[in-house]
Amino acid sequence: MPVINVSTPSATYDVTIAPGLLRTLYPRIRKLSGSKSPRLVVVTSPNIWKLWSKRFLASFPTPPEVLFLPAGERFKRLPAVERLAQELAVAGADRDTLLLAFGGGVIGDITGFLAAIYMRGIPYIQIPSTLLAQVDSSVGGKTGVNLAAGKNLIGSFHHPLATLVDPELVLTLPPAELRSGLQEAVKSAIIRDPALFRFLEQNAKAILARKPDIKALTRVVTASIRVKANVVNIDERENGLRMILNFGHTIGHAIEAATNYKQLLHGQAIGWGQIAALHVALNRGSITQKQFDRMSTLVHQYGPLPPFKAQASRLVTLTASDKKRRSGRRAFVLPIAIGATEIVFDVTDEELLTATQSMLATMRQLTKS
Amino acid sequence: MPVINVSTPSATYDVTIAPGLLRTLYPRIRKLSGSKSPRLVVVTSPNIWKLWSKRFLASFPTPPEVLFLPAGERFKRLPAVERLAQELAVAGADRDTLLLAFGGGVIGDITGFLAAIYMRGIPYIQIPSTLLAQVDSSVGGKTGVNLAAGKNLIGSFHHPLATLVDPELVLTLPPAELRSGLQEAVKSAIIRDPALFRFLEQNAKAILARKPDIKALTRVVTASIRVKANVVNIDERENGLRMILNFGHTIGHAIEAATNYKQLLHGQAIGWGQIAALHVALNRGSITQKQFDRMSTLVHQYGPLPPFKAQASRLVTLTASDKKRRSGRRAFVLPIAIGATEIVFDVTDEELLTATQSMLATMRQLTKS
Ligand SMILES: NC(=O)c1ccc[n+]([C@@H]2O[C@H](COP(=O)([O-])OP(=O)(O)OC[C@H]3O[C@@H](n4cnc5c(N)ncnc54)[C@H](O)[C@@H]3O)[C@@H](O)[C@H]2O)c1
Ligand SMILES: NC(=O)c1ccc[n+]([C@@H]2O[C@H](COP(=O)([O-])OP(=O)(O)OC[C@H]3O[C@@H](n4cnc5c(N)ncnc54)[C@H](O)[C@@H]3O)[C@@H](O)[C@H]2O)c1
Ligand SMILES: [Zn+2]
Ligand SMILES: [Zn+2]
Repeated sequence: MPVINVSTPSATYDVTIAPGLLRTLYPRIRKLSGSKSPRLVVVTSPNIWKLWSKRFLASFPTPPEVLFLPAGERFKRLPAVERLAQELAVAGADRDTLLLAFGGGVIGDITGFLAAIYMRGIPYIQIPSTLLAQVDSSVGGKTGVNLAAGKNLIGSFHHPLATLVDPELVLTLPPAELRSGLQEAVKSAIIRDPALFRFLEQNAKAILARKPDIKALTRVVTASIRVKANVVNIDERENGLRMILNFGHTIGHAIEAATNYKQLLHGQAIGWGQIAALHVALNRGSITQKQFDRMSTLVHQYGPLPPFKAQASRLVTLTASDKKRRSGRRAFVLPIAIGATEIVFDVTDEELLTATQSMLATMRQLTKS
Repeated sequence: MPVINVSTPSATYDVTIAPGLLRTLYPRIRKLSGSKSPRLVVVTSPNIWKLWSKRFLASFPTPPEVLFLPAGERFKRLPAVERLAQELAVAGADRDTLLLAFGGGVIGDITGFLAAIYMRGIPYIQIPSTLLAQVDSSVGGKTGVNLAAGKNLIGSFHHPLATLVDPELVLTLPPAELRSGLQEAVKSAIIRDPALFRFLEQNAKAILARKPDIKALTRVVTASIRVKANVVNIDERENGLRMILNFGHTIGHAIEAATNYKQLLHGQAIGWGQIAALHVALNRGSITQKQFDRMSTLVHQYGPLPPFKAQASRLVTLTASDKKRRSGRRAFVLPIAIGATEIVFDVTDEELLTATQSMLATMRQLTKS
């Protein structure tokens, strides 16, 4: 059973990955809580609870309190945090109450943030139920909510007491959500893990099928978490290395903004963003044509990446809001080999435009064929 | 010019106290920001801005952006935080933007919290304009907002880059607000500063008059901040010593709750709470009758404490929510001499009831005379 340690200046905790883990939750949580009868409150969505509550509760002597948030990114906002906090207070939750975030990235981000600010901070545990949450959002301590003005503009660093990953949870995930999450695994492979890259190349069928065997997917989840944990251990607050996790995200975020966050799943936008970033790398000579082909083929293997409508120039303009965050300098992540990257600050708007046009040309070709 | 250092595991910064400081804000802020032309956003209330903006802006080469929050505790809530955050985002505020909290405790608490969670944390400076904010809320890093279910239930520890105190600001404060703030100074004297205690005893007239000379009040502000900073330096997160700052607050909070936070100012409720706590100490023999008399006289000197209607038993019941926060044990702060306290955990409801009844008896006597 893989256990991956996260160890940063602000926290140390383990990510445990084991198929079937959900049936054995309670003893694990009790041990982590350090209390014989911990005060627990679950935060989840009705659809997830309907699918998985039986297994979730199988190991509990008495069922914990459950608070619900409807499924959907549009509920990742402060009013939802206020409502949940009020419900916690009414239920008598205090500093010793332990929250259990059971769901995808939305539930994880909002519950982590709620834990960060309820009574100035209470503990929580991540129990991620989407592939994206398992390989990405449940590790690293970033929590938060959206504003009308933009995604994740409000938040805190607040690490969980632990992250408990049961890969079997993704058995009920719609295929598009699975593939979307796998784009983050592809990203991890490209930026830092050549062995994962090869495994993703050679086992796409088994990984995507999920049944009868979750082993291949479990290996992908484990390797991806290892990449994320390793990066976060070196640079918790994204002052340097952690930026490499944004590979594909500069153009990816612009695509999400251009399509109003409605048309594509996050991983689909990031898939296209990776294609664009690979074109930047190819045009600069950071990678060879052969490396470009292998990497872009892998991205498409975990597609299909659905087409969308946007002008290349508009997408480049939209990357400006990413840029703004670092006092005018845009950090851009470029692969330099399979499993290795560099961060550069001199990618021009022209380079981005050319690369984005190439990405859109690929999209047109794929739509025709 | 007194400069008091706050130095905790999470931050180190200075509290500077100087009458007239407001006229020299900009060079100080620029130095603190570490930037030649810092990006500044002021958060304040319209009434404060009307009184003091001219002096505030006197040293600015160009006026900074100003965001307004109406005056009043009822605006210390998450929707106000969301609105301010949205305004920050629309104004293009990024991680390098520096917030200036210019107002009383409400403005300080909400701006500090906004700074804690905007883009997962940006810097801010406290420029407190009420006596309470100067001697208490602008030092120590507690930030936050209220829920319907209770005060300050949402928040973060987030220290300012600096606290800049101009005692002249309190010249425009309504006398009741001044006296209310001075109850926290009385508290500081009782718990930890015999010299401040004597100064408060002997200079009440000069302190309360404020004019023509702010010197006496400045000395009180400085000594009170020194007490708070010293306590916070030893115990930032209120695991032990910091609890002594809650002297008078157990019954004080119950009085605020019983009167729906509407009838009394915080310091007035805390004044009564100190009287009740002194009765507990007297009844236990923690202090002598003579010490009791000096301390309760000082509390009333900085009154008048207005009467209110509440049953002693109801007040004791309301202290239960304080208790809840420490897993069932109620920490109670008792003076053991002028300027010295202890924290005890065995104060019974009966003791509290007796003391509260004595406090209410005093109230009746004062109302008759
Ligand atoms: N904190 C971080 O570091 C970080 C990193 C990446 C992404 N994120 C955030 O994560 C969010 C996206 O997460 P997501 O992709 O998991 O979306 P999501 O949480 O909205 O989940 C997607 C959908 O799947 C459903 N679902 C969840 N588990 C299921 C299961 N086992 N079976 C069937 N359906 C299930 C959900 O109810 C939802 O409808 C975004 O808000 C993003 O900002 C955060
Ligand atoms: N963070 C902490 O450690 C801490 C400690 C104690 C209290 N608090 C909080 O502080 C708040 C109370 O603070 P407060 O007593 O300053 O109340 P406040 O901020 O509401 O100010 C009181 C009134 O005085 C007005 N005002 C402010 N400055 C003025 C000036 N110079 N001249 C004239 N009027 C002025 C305000 O607009 C308001 O109407 C509460 O919310 C309390 O929870 C926080
Ligand atoms: Zn992503
Ligand atoms: Zn107080």
